[in-house]
Amino acid sequence: MPSISRRSSEMPLSPIRKLVPLADAAEERGVKIYHLNIGQPDIPTPQVAIDAIKNIDRKVLEYTNSAGTLEYRQKLVEYYNRFGINLNKEDILVTTGGSEAFNFAFLCCFSYGEEVIIPEPFYANYSSFANAVGIKIKPISSSFEDDFSLPSAKEFEKLITPNTKGIFICNPNNPTGYLYTEEELNDLKDLVKKHDLFLLSDEVYREFCYDDNKHFSALSLKGIEDNVVIIDSVSKRYSECGLRIGALISRNNQVINAAVKFAQARLSPPLIGQIAACASIDATPAYAESVYNEYIQRRNMLVEGLNKIPGVKSLLPKGAFYTMVKLPVKDAEDFCSWILSDFEYEGQTVMMAPGSGFYNSPNRGHDEVRIAYVLNIEDLKKALVVLEKALAIYPGRI
Amino acid sequence: MPSISRRSSEMPLSPIRKLVPLADAAEERGVKIYHLNIGQPDIPTPQVAIDAIKNIDRKVLEYTNSAGTLEYRQKLVEYYNRFGINLNKEDILVTTGGSEAFNFAFLCCFSYGEEVIIPEPFYANYSSFANAVGIKIKPISSSFEDDFSLPSAKEFEKLITPNTKGIFICNPNNPTGYLYTEEELNDLKDLVKKHDLFLLSDEVYREFCYDDNKHFSALSLKGIEDNVVIIDSVSKRYSECGLRIGALISRNNQVINAAVKFAQARLSPPLIGQIAACASIDATPAYAESVYNEYIQRRNMLVEGLNKIPGVKSLLPKGAFYTMVKLPVKDAEDFCSWILSDFEYEGQTVMMAPGSGFYNSPNRGHDEVRIAYVLNIEDLKKALVVLEKALAIYPGRI
Repeated sequence: MPSISRRSSEMPLSPIRKLVPLADAAEERGVKIYHLNIGQPDIPTPQVAIDAIKNIDRKVLEYTNSAGTLEYRQKLVEYYNRFGINLNKEDILVTTGGSEAFNFAFLCCFSYGEEVIIPEPFYANYSSFANAVGIKIKPISSSFEDDFSLPSAKEFEKLITPNTKGIFICNPNNPTGYLYTEEELNDLKDLVKKHDLFLLSDEVYREFCYDDNKHFSALSLKGIEDNVVIIDSVSKRYSECGLRIGALISRNNQVINAAVKFAQARLSPPLIGQIAACASIDATPAYAESVYNEYIQRRNMLVEGLNKIPGVKSLLPKGAFYTMVKLPVKDAEDFCSWILSDFEYEGQTVMMAPGSGFYNSPNRGHDEVRIAYVLNIEDLKKALVVLEKALAIYPGRI
Repeated sequence: MPSISRRSSEMPLSPIRKLVPLADAAEERGVKIYHLNIGQPDIPTPQVAIDAIKNIDRKVLEYTNSAGTLEYRQKLVEYYNRFGINLNKEDILVTTGGSEAFNFAFLCCFSYGEEVIIPEPFYANYSSFANAVGIKIKPISSSFEDDFSLPSAKEFEKLITPNTKGIFICNPNNPTGYLYTEEELNDLKDLVKKHDLFLLSDEVYREFCYDDNKHFSALSLKGIEDNVVIIDSVSKRYSECGLRIGALISRNNQVINAAVKFAQARLSPPLIGQIAACASIDATPAYAESVYNEYIQRRNMLVEGLNKIPGVKSLLPKGAFYTMVKLPVKDAEDFCSWILSDFEYEGQTVMMAPGSGFYNSPNRGHDEVRIAYVLNIEDLKKALVVLEKALAIYPGRI
């Protein structure tokens, strides 16, 4: 039997998904699980998007242009304009989810073996894409104690080698909920300019900024237009995870032209998804407001509730819908397994993502979990009760 | 400005799409173009699929399981059963188009730098995927003179090195229309067994086999179950190119488990596409029959018409909906450009894919074009007239 490839063997299992078998077993025992582990919102998709799908009027479901339909790319230009960001449709490549945009960004900006610096903790799938295309992630530490803010230029420069080709941030941040300031973005600008690096920015949570904090996009940085590459997606913005529509954006036409070549190889992004995503941009401001208010309420209730549990600490996230939570345990991964396998409270338990999976450095995040507040307030309240009861009797508590 | 990656620079431009600017210019001059260059069928998508999309009853368009929905995977088991192929749903990973299935197959079966042998001419995008993941294609010659049949085991063995990890075929073949026989498949079986190789088979045109020829799937080979990996797609079968739904199939659970890890990184294949593809499997036999009859008619008319043009030669394809055509010209790529830029007949011209783009070896296919018979009979007839008129006056004729 031929052996599978080295990169397959080295491919990490998703930290978010590896507890699934334990959750399945708990469900089989009849236990109700509150899923705080994944970023699948329960928020309804805008009705205009559903209607666009229902009203589809085509006889043949054809390929679209490899870079996306003209209509959708023009609509995206209009969307970015609302944020004061001026783009041409040629700066935009429509992708199959944000996932494909990462993949294209890595393929186009990095040669085999080159390095990208990413503040950790970071979205675990960045590692998977880096592994698939053979590039190396150099993690730079951000920490709970510093609010997960951007490390200093000096810290970055310690990691920059002749192989370093870019810096990658997620803003607002998954998993920390941190929102980078305009000042921090300017620090990054100086860095990438000085060392001639790409600045990749995952901005899929752009709309989710709380407490009057405004999102400052890497696309708004002047003088490094050719260095900036943006990853975007409609998945979270409009609760359209299943459409698989994202975008790769850059004013550097060498990057976009290169990405178009990879895009042509896979022929076309999904047709129906583009139709629905295009319609979503015309969703009413009332939709955006109701979504926003819902998340603010959830965040406030969740973070207040977490900090009331003895030994538990959560920062107040300024963006996205995640928070990295410190737990009074020796090994959060063991706790996440135990709470699924050996615990239930009134027939319920919770599923969380172990923090260590979001760090590349060994020995970091071992007392942390990532919690996504994508459940309604009532379920979040019940999940908090379950968590408190579990921590009270968990044998590995410190 | 940071430079783009080496693999981007080395990425070939699609031979099928690189004439697009010339075609755009012709259209701007008001010339009607018959598109014989791409595999986008004009056949209607089954009504059951369109209805499934129109009747979607969901509030949230969620991620599906990374491996595909349970319903669709079970339905695919039923589909393969119709061909006498027994699979479990665990043997099937739903992908974002056949394109993603190639990508996963290459990622899982080949380490960086390893080699795959592919009979040429072959589907040009295999080169793009190989380049993206850093593996090497070793072309093995099949030729017009031999009907594009499978090269002998001896020829294959000349190319096998310690770095060779697999053989890849497309059956029925794009671009040649060749259908591999059971005997040829058995020769491949002996080869992959002897040298412990993967046998990758792209079978997306399975239903398109003519003149009572039956498709013999690599999945029907006994004794090499762990070596066989299949690429599939609904794009051509149901005229659903825009849905982006394919599948990777193998009874080797190491391959599927590895592919699931890459699939988890990209989260989910398209939800709506899976719903429509699932419904399509219940399309009536009358649908399949009408599609089949339409292609048979087109093929017969086209090939007869081509062979009547002085100096033009086409084999009678046994499968798929392409044929590699010999033209009486020095350089078919120049002819394909010329016919778009410098020729029109009664306000019409044709677009074809230059043959050389389907060969990896230099100096092969220079007097060939690939023609796809995805237009209706009337348009095909007109296209043949245009082609004959053009060849009569083309200055590079031999």
